[in-house]
Amino acid sequence: MLFHVEMDVRIPHDLPVEKVDALKAAERVRAMELQRTGAWRHLWRVAGRYANVSIFDVSGAQELHDILSSLPLFPFMEIQVTPLCRHPSSIHDDDR
Amino acid sequence: MLFHVEMDVRIPHDLPVEKVDALKAAERVRAMELQRTGAWRHLWRVAGRYANVSIFDVSGAQELHDILSSLPLFPFMEIQVTPLCRHPSSIHDDDR
Amino acid sequence: MLFHVEMDVRIPHDLPVEKVDALKAAERVRAMELQRTGAWRHLWRVAGRYANVSIFDVSGAQELHDILSSLPLFPFMEIQVTPLCRHPSSIHDDDR
Amino acid sequence: MLFHVEMDVRIPHDLPVEKVDALKAAERVRAMELQRTGAWRHLWRVAGRYANVSIFDVSGAQELHDILSSLPLFPFMEIQVTPLCRHPSSIHDDDR
Amino acid sequence: MLFHVEMDVRIPHDLPVEKVDALKAAERVRAMELQRTGAWRHLWRVAGRYANVSIFDVSGAQELHDILSSLPLFPFMEIQVTPLCRHPSSIHDDDR
Amino acid sequence: MLFHVEMDVRIPHDLPVEKVDALKAAERVRAMELQRTGAWRHLWRVAGRYANVSIFDVSGAQELHDILSSLPLFPFMEIQVTPLCRHPSSIHDDDR
Amino acid sequence: MLFHVEMDVRIPHDLPVEKVDALKAAERVRAMELQRTGAWRHLWRVAGRYANVSIFDVSGAQELHDILSSLPLFPFMEIQVTPLCRHPSSIHDDDR
Amino acid sequence: MLFHVEMDVRIPHDLPVEKVDALKAAERVRAMELQRTGAWRHLWRVAGRYANVSIFDVSGAQELHDILSSLPLFPFMEIQVTPLCRHPSSIHDDDR
Amino acid sequence: MLFHVEMDVRIPHDLPVEKVDALKAAERVRAMELQRTGAWRHLWRVAGRYANVSIFDVSGAQELHDILSSLPLFPFMEIQVTPLCRHPSSIHDDDR
Amino acid sequence: MLFHVEMDVRIPHDLPVEKVDALKAAERVRAMELQRTGAWRHLWRVAGRYANVSIFDVSGAQELHDILSSLPLFPFMEIQVTPLCRHPSSIHDDDR
Repeated sequence: MLFHVEMDVRIPHDLPVEKVDALKAAERVRAMELQRTGAWRHLWRVAGRYANVSIFDVSGAQELHDILSSLPLFPFMEIQVTPLCRHPSSIHDDDR
Repeated sequence: MLFHVEMDVRIPHDLPVEKVDALKAAERVRAMELQRTGAWRHLWRVAGRYANVSIFDVSGAQELHDILSSLPLFPFMEIQVTPLCRHPSSIHDDDR
Repeated sequence: MLFHVEMDVRIPHDLPVEKVDALKAAERVRAMELQRTGAWRHLWRVAGRYANVSIFDVSGAQELHDILSSLPLFPFMEIQVTPLCRHPSSIHDDDR
Repeated sequence: MLFHVEMDVRIPHDLPVEKVDALKAAERVRAMELQRTGAWRHLWRVAGRYANVSIFDVSGAQELHDILSSLPLFPFMEIQVTPLCRHPSSIHDDDR
Repeated sequence: MLFHVEMDVRIPHDLPVEKVDALKAAERVRAMELQRTGAWRHLWRVAGRYANVSIFDVSGAQELHDILSSLPLFPFMEIQVTPLCRHPSSIHDDDR
Repeated sequence: MLFHVEMDVRIPHDLPVEKVDALKAAERVRAMELQRTGAWRHLWRVAGRYANVSIFDVSGAQELHDILSSLPLFPFMEIQVTPLCRHPSSIHDDDR
Repeated sequence: MLFHVEMDVRIPHDLPVEKVDALKAAERVRAMELQRTGAWRHLWRVAGRYANVSIFDVSGAQELHDILSSLPLFPFMEIQVTPLCRHPSSIHDDDR
Repeated sequence: MLFHVEMDVRIPHDLPVEKVDALKAAERVRAMELQRTGAWRHLWRVAGRYANVSIFDVSGAQELHDILSSLPLFPFMEIQVTPLCRHPSSIHDDDR
Repeated sequence: MLFHVEMDVRIPHDLPVEKVDALKAAERVRAMELQRTGAWRHLWRVAGRYANVSIFDVSGAQELHDILSSLPLFPFMEIQVTPLCRHPSSIHDDDR
Repeated sequence: MLFHVEMDVRIPHDLPVEKVDALKAAERVRAMELQRTGAWRHLWRVAGRYANVSIFDVSGAQELHDILSSLPLFPFMEIQVTPLCRHPSSIHDDDR
């Protein structure tokens, strides 16, 4: 099942730099891992903002929540989830 | 270049049914055509709404506008465009 | 899988009364049917508004969309979908 | 009487970890207690957010307020209350 | 139980004048009736707008909805309901 | 002259507890005083939120501002003022 | 007493031209009259919009409402009222 | 003096096609004229929407309003005006 | 040229009291000065809020910005600027 | 390709003055540099706010993001990007 997810990252300016760097590095590792498993199907940067638009391919809302809530930057992200389904005019088998 | 586009369709209830049907059929044909050329890369239905989330792969804002403004349902759509770029943590060559 | 759905009904005042009555009657029949199958698990009226809050229990976003988009009043409803999952503090087996 | 309640938790990042842990543990105990008494009838997690959607079954607005305002995480929650009533198309005796 | 209700009236300009006058007259009669029974406890005009702020004193959300949804102008009103309860600093026995 | 006032209290979490307690106690004393003089005619708690809905009966906007801006919790309140007047359908002499 | 009033005029495009012209002419006459009495103290056009910003000097909210609700264009205006009072740093006796 | 102006065009679907065409043609002629005089300094299309972003160079708010309010499509446009001034880091003499 | 300006003051609660007092005193002196020169033509307090509505009479947007951005409280104000022009129904020579 | 960019700067009041000054100086140097290369084509100050409206002329969304995200004040800016294209009524060759 596909979910459209927008994540806006807002890191408080008084968080220690080392902590921020560690969080970002961990986030990056986890994001790559999840892309490899196929759960995080697409990942794009929104031009001009510390934000991304993503497509997740998971078994359902539970798996999606487990993934998102365990992201290292989760406590500093504004997240918006939109469930997707197949568009009747789509010609791509994959865009379920 | 990739653009994230959300389209909400709002057809006035007093539009004649035949006109609506003709517009929808034409929209469908055009959407399939544009998917075949690769310009309309992804097309998903938003669950529970007469709306879609799409990814366009075009040469720039001009081509995107020419495509969107010539869609048969354009006069009845609320459209939001977000320019995307490569995410530094993306592992998909294709998600430029 | 559970979805939280809010539906606001906005019927244009210039729709013929008989058409409105027919739509409402059909909506009522369909709503009861879907409650009997278990797909429309809860249905509450929002006090003071022509609106409802509902919980759907379906196989996924596709089934949800098929159900909602085929409701007789769908063209006159503002719909908002929120995917739910189990709350770690829930004690009800059923509130998956 | 039924109330629909949405709670968004926003814990300041500079609150000591032990305090946060204690608050969450206390919140969990209280939430379970209130579910057992029947006052907190449903409790769902909103997928992708530190938030819940709940249904409370209480004697009125006063009892609801007493319950919500004494939740351990109350000072850190954005709460929205919507009074519900029976939907004329509901077939569940319980969905008063 | 007390509810705070805001009603914004928006009458379409193409509704026949006689129908509008009849609706307003009926609304006025009904509003006075409900004030006499005590259900519509307070009724104020918002200065500069075709809107009112009201306090209802009813047995619960069901009675409130039955009253509001049967008002002659209900189809043309934007209504917002807020459940109230006793304020700990209130000195008026009546402001439950 | 009557004013409808909504007050949302937002106390920063890093304010010392004793200061908060002192502010709340002073606020309570002042609120009771103003109710006794008749200026603060109604005071209700909004269910589920640290907020109130109030009706003030004062000589005009100047007196209202002097009262509100000298409340102990004023620096921590989001306040919205709406001027009221008599509703033509009101039957209560007092609801000027 | 002074009130700050913003009026946005939104005339439906299907209103007959003669009716619109008559309404505008009547509005103009009435606006000038009210300026002469001193009730409509200031009247400015918002650049680029069919809207005005005004200052009314009236005995209270009741007089303000009586004036605004009897303006010929009242049914086609979005109106926002803000009660003003003397600013402690004002040096103009007149800006009460 | 420079003004930043956003114009969103919303033409009602029940306006006769010939009237719409005549309005658009007249708008185009007027827009070109105003660009030639230098008053309408920049004119860009917003990608994907029937809207433009413009920079006007006029003597003041009065001239701007006279220009905008006499545009053929003015009754069908949502307009937002923002006054601009020189940015201290600008290196273009012309970007006053 | 006239500008309508709304200023909302939001002083962080952790700013030292002496600094706040000094800022307010300086703001007051500057506001009076600017009223004397005629640039700050009107200054009203918004009832119930730490905010003002003002009318500035300046040579253009540049002078307005220079004035506003040099106000002592500028870093703590939310400011909204609206350019005004003469209303065709105004009878006051001065309300240019 | 042209992009319309609005930047609102919000510097936390507890950032050390020297750090703020250094950030602003670096921002200024970088802004001038980018104007000289032609990438930052226009730069205007929004009157009355610590904000700017800009036009960027870049190869695409990627270059835009690389530029914006490396601005010294980027972590303290609220940025909104709008892709532009040629307006059919534009007479300026340059306003592609």
